Amino acid sequence: MNIGFIGLGNMGAPMARNLIRAGHTLTVFDLSAPAVAELVDAGATGADSPTDVAHANVDIIITMLPASAHVKSVYLGESGLLSTVDPQVLLIDSSTIDPISAREVARAASANGNSLLDAPVSGGTGGAAAGTLTFMVGGTENEFEKARPILACMGKNIVHCGASGNGQVAKVANNMLLGISMIGVAEAMALGTRLGMDAKVLASIINTSSGRCWSSDTNNPFPGVLENVPASRGYSGGFGTDLMLKDLGLATDAARAIRQPVILGALAQQLYQQFSSGGNGGLDFSAIINNYLEPAKNE
Amino acid sequence: MNIGFIGLGNMGAPMARNLIRAGHTLTVFDLSAPAVAELVDAGATGADSPTDVAHANVDIIITMLPASAHVKSVYLGESGLLSTVDPQVLLIDSSTIDPISAREVARAASANGNSLLDAPVSGGTGGAAAGTLTFMVGGTENEFEKARPILACMGKNIVHCGASGNGQVAKVANNMLLGISMIGVAEAMALGTRLGMDAKVLASIINTSSGRCWSSDTNNPFPGVLENVPASRGYSGGFGTDLMLKDLGLATDAARAIRQPVILGALAQQLYQQFSSGGNGGLDFSAIINNYLEPAKNE
Amino acid sequence: MNIGFIGLGNMGAPMARNLIRAGHTLTVFDLSAPAVAELVDAGATGADSPTDVAHANVDIIITMLPASAHVKSVYLGESGLLSTVDPQVLLIDSSTIDPISAREVARAASANGNSLLDAPVSGGTGGAAAGTLTFMVGGTENEFEKARPILACMGKNIVHCGASGNGQVAKVANNMLLGISMIGVAEAMALGTRLGMDAKVLASIINTSSGRCWSSDTNNPFPGVLENVPASRGYSGGFGTDLMLKDLGLATDAARAIRQPVILGALAQQLYQQFSSGGNGGLDFSAIINNYLEPAKNE
Amino acid sequence: MNIGFIGLGNMGAPMARNLIRAGHTLTVFDLSAPAVAELVDAGATGADSPTDVAHANVDIIITMLPASAHVKSVYLGESGLLSTVDPQVLLIDSSTIDPISAREVARAASANGNSLLDAPVSGGTGGAAAGTLTFMVGGTENEFEKARPILACMGKNIVHCGASGNGQVAKVANNMLLGISMIGVAEAMALGTRLGMDAKVLASIINTSSGRCWSSDTNNPFPGVLENVPASRGYSGGFGTDLMLKDLGLATDAARAIRQPVILGALAQQLYQQFSSGGNGGLDFSAIINNYLEPAKNE
Repeated sequence: MNIGFIGLGNMGAPMARNLIRAGHTLTVFDLSAPAVAELVDAGATGADSPTDVAHANVDIIITMLPASAHVKSVYLGESGLLSTVDPQVLLIDSSTIDPISAREVARAASANGNSLLDAPVSGGTGGAAAGTLTFMVGGTENEFEKARPILACMGKNIVHCGASGNGQVAKVANNMLLGISMIGVAEAMALGTRLGMDAKVLASIINTSSGRCWSSDTNNPFPGVLENVPASRGYSGGFGTDLMLKDLGLATDAARAIRQPVILGALAQQLYQQFSSGGNGGLDFSAIINNYLEPAKNE
Repeated sequence: MNIGFIGLGNMGAPMARNLIRAGHTLTVFDLSAPAVAELVDAGATGADSPTDVAHANVDIIITMLPASAHVKSVYLGESGLLSTVDPQVLLIDSSTIDPISAREVARAASANGNSLLDAPVSGGTGGAAAGTLTFMVGGTENEFEKARPILACMGKNIVHCGASGNGQVAKVANNMLLGISMIGVAEAMALGTRLGMDAKVLASIINTSSGRCWSSDTNNPFPGVLENVPASRGYSGGFGTDLMLKDLGLATDAARAIRQPVILGALAQQLYQQFSSGGNGGLDFSAIINNYLEPAKNE
Repeated sequence: MNIGFIGLGNMGAPMARNLIRAGHTLTVFDLSAPAVAELVDAGATGADSPTDVAHANVDIIITMLPASAHVKSVYLGESGLLSTVDPQVLLIDSSTIDPISAREVARAASANGNSLLDAPVSGGTGGAAAGTLTFMVGGTENEFEKARPILACMGKNIVHCGASGNGQVAKVANNMLLGISMIGVAEAMALGTRLGMDAKVLASIINTSSGRCWSSDTNNPFPGVLENVPASRGYSGGFGTDLMLKDLGLATDAARAIRQPVILGALAQQLYQQFSSGGNGGLDFSAIINNYLEPAKNE
Repeated sequence: MNIGFIGLGNMGAPMARNLIRAGHTLTVFDLSAPAVAELVDAGATGADSPTDVAHANVDIIITMLPASAHVKSVYLGESGLLSTVDPQVLLIDSSTIDPISAREVARAASANGNSLLDAPVSGGTGGAAAGTLTFMVGGTENEFEKARPILACMGKNIVHCGASGNGQVAKVANNMLLGISMIGVAEAMALGTRLGMDAKVLASIINTSSGRCWSSDTNNPFPGVLENVPASRGYSGGFGTDLMLKDLGLATDAARAIRQPVILGALAQQLYQQFSSGGNGGLDFSAIINNYLEPAKNE
């Protein structure tokens, strides 16, 4: 198929490469010329603007952008996609943005005659490179089935979350819970070890008890409990604290828009913000345990 | 073996019955005469005081009491067990109390020549009746091996958590994390559904993603997501909110004693306290989701 | 002087009336035609758009708008003020918006040759009608001195807060503290009275001790402690919970933009959000005490 | 009058000295012999035990002890005061303890025929030395009037808070609010200054606005805003963080006993605990602002 791809950053570039590998013809755009050049080297055709992508006889356009403002600009801006794209083109936005903005853009696409799916991902840059991302997709059943084979070139789990915007809802709800759970594990591991327990023994008990969770059994924040996790390599190379902060911001913003309290969610956001303001925004979010372990070192 | 058993409440009585079923000879005491009478009907010998239990030629004494004050009184009081028990008798306290008190009592026992294991349980009254409790045990390897066959008459998982007090540490650390996770799940499910997602779809995504946890995949608080959980029967018959409150009190007390912050833990405690003060202390702790779902009904 | 006034809502309308009373000539605009008509009856000239206001030979334009999006649209939009206003016209924005947006608009004005002061107010609709508002003003000393006599027609305290944006900074910092203090007083009064103290005695002790604050000595949330406050008339007619929520949103947004933790501020925001979601957004924010007093009634 | 005084620590010793200076005859006891010796040098008679104090023909006994356990031991212990003191002796406990324990001890005194007032103080060691303490007194009107002239030798404000225990209630309620307000001021000052405002200007605006409170206008935590406060001398010599922690512990314990939520109070407790665990327990509690200012320095 002819696919347009807009947004070739740390996530977008490897996703686009996987589409090329799967045999699709790509027309790509990014504000960064070198990013475009790299994909052209890999076999894509470069474009000079979103408009150029829209005019390249594409069947599908995928966008992967940093934030809501970029998504609105690329789709709704004066020379944005919706002003020029053929109504037959299927639009897929894989950016992570707030659900309310996602629905606003989808409604505008629909008024233009286009289908627009929200399809944010989880799995990080590793999953993007390996083609093992999870896609959480919002849109009609019919639109979802059209997009599924394309998304399957880039990911392993393609999950239909319901109507438009629900892909974003699933992602922010899951990640808010993740952000809370990780701090919960950090507090429990710090309390237990400072009260005298061995960290591995404590983790093994939690992992077979009612405290069991991904943040304990798969990404335990206490150094040395698990191998091959960020905590055992200086908290490098996982899901960055600042990315968690971004997702908690989306969650609390969406909650605010509908007057829904998210009390632990908002407190978790502040604790990661405190940690990030100390210069730790690039560390895996499990490094938040240092807020609980380090003071003891000072004593 | 000859076993003394002190404390025949909702947990202690079925535990004692399981020991009788396993063929052991029991001498039992409780402040409630009817509680003693019921166990006598089941084959135990009644005693008039802890001292009487100690003098009944027992090999082991197990205590199952409501709180730290009772444990200290039964072991350390003027006519308490340590004032009279033979040093050969193995002592096992299955009460859930704070780790610091547990160690204080164990040290006093040790000074008396007795081994005293802390062995709090999880699994609730259902597990106590079925003999499927989990025991988290603190004490030496040697003491643990002596106690294991007895505990195995009452439970399925008998876990050695390390030195004295560590059984309590494991329990309060796990349950603090549980209390936090449940509120995290409640906030995520409430946010997601109020933003338009189907509760079962959202739960299924979380349960295969990084938000996965026991509170979501085994005791999901949203009504109708899982069958046979408290949320699907009006929040009856699980782990009561007031029991969660008790354990969070133990966790924050232990944290305070060593100046260890437990920020989400303390906030979770207040949120359950707010919920309990509204008259909901007897509901399963997953009912806390009503704090997040009910306001919406008012709109 | 010839003054343009854009935004004639609950605050803007009485402010504009006070300028007319002070002898100034007003040209006014609002999206609501009836709102314009009322001011025309009071002696103003109506305009059909912000552009019309800009072309009405004015010396000063004052804007009083609900939120950042409206301010950006009126000043920076395609046919916004900056596209057409004479560089000699002094611009004053009395809307309450986030400091970062305020500075962005002020920079755009400056690039256009205009001075733009941020001058948010406190004092509510009562203060607007009585001409007793406090203005917190950001801009150069010189700009401030030009604006002061005009602002003095609408307010009693005209405070220079420093450079551009600082009027907004002062307002959000003060109101975040206010939102926290009020909940602090609510918790202290609820705790003390439920422990058996008389509310008036407790308030009198706090008001002469280190807990002393405006939320205790001037707007005490406990019914009957003070006369003529919202708490003594069913929480009507003060500073609405939803207005407090708006200001806490501005504070946490500004904090997020600079990675500055505001832990109690964010928790206070959630607690007011919980209270508002129960249908109480129109009550004075001191009504939050009901979250602490009502559960007791249920017992 | 003949006065017994038990507890000659940092607060008790200067209080006892002021009674001697006022012409009273003192019999004093402390576990520390040097503490007793110093008071004997100042004119008091030393005693060997609380019992000795009770037998010294005293009209009044005042106790000033570190915590609830000491108070219970001195009054209710096997050879405690109540076992031996004459029913005519008026008992005054100036220790800061939880209201529920205070009432328990007062009830025991009453059963013994003695009046026992709770009379905790505020004002710190400076106020104790200068005789300017505030006494918050719980007991009957009649008992209060008997105690007042004696307390007036040690303090300036002698406030009747109502029935037994209410002195403690007033103190913990006020100090919980104080602990919250101080963090609120810290967050507001940190946010405002990091957004570009001058600290003194910001404080002056808050102090004339609705954020006004003792923590801002009398003990502002931002260095340099006020002279002669801990913030302007490295946070030395005020009300220590660990003393604030103690009082927040009393507040949350009392709240827990009656199932009353104190949400910001419990979070404030954790934040001071975090700060103390970093080795800052001896600094004035206003130093908590460093949790908000220091991360920025790291950037």
